[in-house]
Amino acid sequence: MLKEMGIKVRSASRVMAVTPTQVKNQALLSLAALLEQARPEVKAANDQDIAAAKENGMSEALIDRLTLTETRLDGLSRDLRKLAALPDPIGEAFDETVLENGLRLHRRRVPLGVLGVIYESRPNVTIDVAGLAIKTGNGVILRGGKETIHSNLTLVRLARQALGENNLPEDAVQFIENPDRALVNELLKLHEYVDIIVPRGGEGLHRFCRENSQIPVITGGIGICHIYVDQNADLEKALPVIHNAKTQHPSVCNALDTLLVHKAAAAALLPRVVRRLAKDGVTFKAAPEALAALEGLEASLKTKVAPAGPEDFDTEWMSLVLGLKVVEDLDEAIRHTNAHSMSHSDSILTNDAEHAARWINEIDSAAVYVNASTRFTDGGQFGLGAEVAISTQRLHARGPMGLRELTTYKWVGEGDYTTRD
Amino acid sequence: MLKEMGIKVRSASRVMAVTPTQVKNQALLSLAALLEQARPEVKAANDQDIAAAKENGMSEALIDRLTLTETRLDGLSRDLRKLAALPDPIGEAFDETVLENGLRLHRRRVPLGVLGVIYESRPNVTIDVAGLAIKTGNGVILRGGKETIHSNLTLVRLARQALGENNLPEDAVQFIENPDRALVNELLKLHEYVDIIVPRGGEGLHRFCRENSQIPVITGGIGICHIYVDQNADLEKALPVIHNAKTQHPSVCNALDTLLVHKAAAAALLPRVVRRLAKDGVTFKAAPEALAALEGLEASLKTKVAPAGPEDFDTEWMSLVLGLKVVEDLDEAIRHTNAHSMSHSDSILTNDAEHAARWINEIDSAAVYVNASTRFTDGGQFGLGAEVAISTQRLHARGPMGLRELTTYKWVGEGDYTTRD
Repeated sequence: MLKEMGIKVRSASRVMAVTPTQVKNQALLSLAALLEQARPEVKAANDQDIAAAKENGMSEALIDRLTLTETRLDGLSRDLRKLAALPDPIGEAFDETVLENGLRLHRRRVPLGVLGVIYESRPNVTIDVAGLAIKTGNGVILRGGKETIHSNLTLVRLARQALGENNLPEDAVQFIENPDRALVNELLKLHEYVDIIVPRGGEGLHRFCRENSQIPVITGGIGICHIYVDQNADLEKALPVIHNAKTQHPSVCNALDTLLVHKAAAAALLPRVVRRLAKDGVTFKAAPEALAALEGLEASLKTKVAPAGPEDFDTEWMSLVLGLKVVEDLDEAIRHTNAHSMSHSDSILTNDAEHAARWINEIDSAAVYVNASTRFTDGGQFGLGAEVAISTQRLHARGPMGLRELTTYKWVGEGDYTTRD
Repeated sequence: MLKEMGIKVRSASRVMAVTPTQVKNQALLSLAALLEQARPEVKAANDQDIAAAKENGMSEALIDRLTLTETRLDGLSRDLRKLAALPDPIGEAFDETVLENGLRLHRRRVPLGVLGVIYESRPNVTIDVAGLAIKTGNGVILRGGKETIHSNLTLVRLARQALGENNLPEDAVQFIENPDRALVNELLKLHEYVDIIVPRGGEGLHRFCRENSQIPVITGGIGICHIYVDQNADLEKALPVIHNAKTQHPSVCNALDTLLVHKAAAAALLPRVVRRLAKDGVTFKAAPEALAALEGLEASLKTKVAPAGPEDFDTEWMSLVLGLKVVEDLDEAIRHTNAHSMSHSDSILTNDAEHAARWINEIDSAAVYVNASTRFTDGGQFGLGAEVAISTQRLHARGPMGLRELTTYKWVGEGDYTTRD
């Protein structure tokens, strides 16, 4: 059933792949304008989704996620205009050489082809992803959640209209309307027409994709992030970094989950961490040695600290909870981090250059930091201009994926009727 | 059952990842020397495989593939020494920037982690792949064919010995001894311990891996390669290129399968192609218009040309057969190639720069050529120094995969107790 959609989007993607930068940018600007002109329509569709969500007793938090407020809609148009202004990675030539036989060889950046993006409640993802696909000359098959079906159908119609207005193939943006989960499974088997699957959702969705896909899957977006405070860190300076990593935005994947502290620094640091972070509502799960280091704490603060169970160091908290653990030395910190991290973002605080170098080399994560907050792992922070996902797998792209990570390359060989000896 | 092997190789791969270049190179040189010292042992094991193959009535061609001749063994040691002399991609820093907040950011090339390589009869692949893994600091799980089990076990033992002699973890090279196909399936599910699957074999193996793997699979090594001779190509110069692409090594994936000819060049070119290539044993499958263009051919040559069935243009010949088809124009040539190519290697012969540019842009293959033989798609030819596979998928790497394509990167952020605003 999806095969026909696959054939259409593959064919459209071939046109998008050779579309000049200026025309792709114009389509993004058209979409930004359409989102403003058609705002009553978009709001009406979104209201239908909100009404259905209320009828189905959906939680306030989830209803908030699917609501397209004026601010969010303004943001979508603004982001599309920013995207139009970014450099186009497509066509870039690199690794140019001339072989001994005279063959001129280079690699040229080209679109990945067709993206399959599976996401959940937030309808703004529809526009974000359609915009990234247009910018990078990729086709895309979108599969959003059924709770935002009316919003998504309207937004997809506008994206296709923006393509059409610029004489680009509307079929480059496809949307799976039927919410049946069986169609997700069918999408994951469409390897002739789809080149990459990007799931944007929880661990269950990622696992489902990995286990059922015949197309490479970019898994990520889940991080159990560590900060290790080394023996000779500057504890005064360490405190704001820990506070920033834990409290600035606790519900995201690059927020701090576990604080590891060298045994020589535990007694001095841990009580200060609890005092400072408890003020902002943080509670703590402490391993035995960390509990011991907190023995002398005021009774009112002791209530914020619970003994950690073993599974607590394998939990992405997504909330104001912080695991605390004392380690013997750098070796134990590295071992613990590599064993419990989801290979997302992990940081050492130290004034020892040798320890910093070992952390960088030996921690097996997409982003490793020295004397910095884990919160930096983000396409915007890294200056990528846009972000489609944060990858924690190793193939193709690691960490924040921007425009360039939605491309691949082809080898181009130019000769003079050149033959191989 | 393989989980334990996975745990061991993951752990060993962490050591390999931080091993200095010189030590890795020393291990390669040790292996080269061991292969020379232990030659009687290797030959004895290989003889066992040959004897079993004969007993099982295996064809001469297959027995030839699994035979480790003196020349092939010399080649293995020589290639290992060459590999040791190549630059090490690991540790290379790129995309260095300093963010506004002072965070120094770069990407650093690191090993992929653990490779899973599934291959068939040629035991020299065992040493090739073990060498590439050692050079790039990756761990590897090898799964060779059961018909070369004795050779492989001896070669793997030598590879592990070479690691041990240099105080490197022998567990970085693992071999699945049990030939049960169920273990291949188990390997494909070992996503916690294996980062990439490289099947080296026929289409059946590739399909099996794609359909059953929970780990990203590099598919490739299968090409239906095209040369399109444009209206205004230099036919005199075109002939040797076509000859080279078809006959130089017909049993490999970058050999020519289909010759497309512009209708205006068909009458002049096709009879010459048949006359020249038939001398070297080539036979032809011609579509109707190509047959018509060959009407005037000598009777003795007409026997070399058969009418093409439609499936003939979807066949990788791997032998001295060539499909012939006349097309209306460049558009039809591009459409036909994109529809029938396996996205491997396709070439245009033309003196029209605009047509050349369109071919480069619009042909959706790993390697696209202008006025050159398709036979160049090869790690050695491209100067990559070594080749683990030729990828025809789009993610991570396309075309010949050398040392760099066995790496990924991590983001490294270095600050001064830097926090995010």
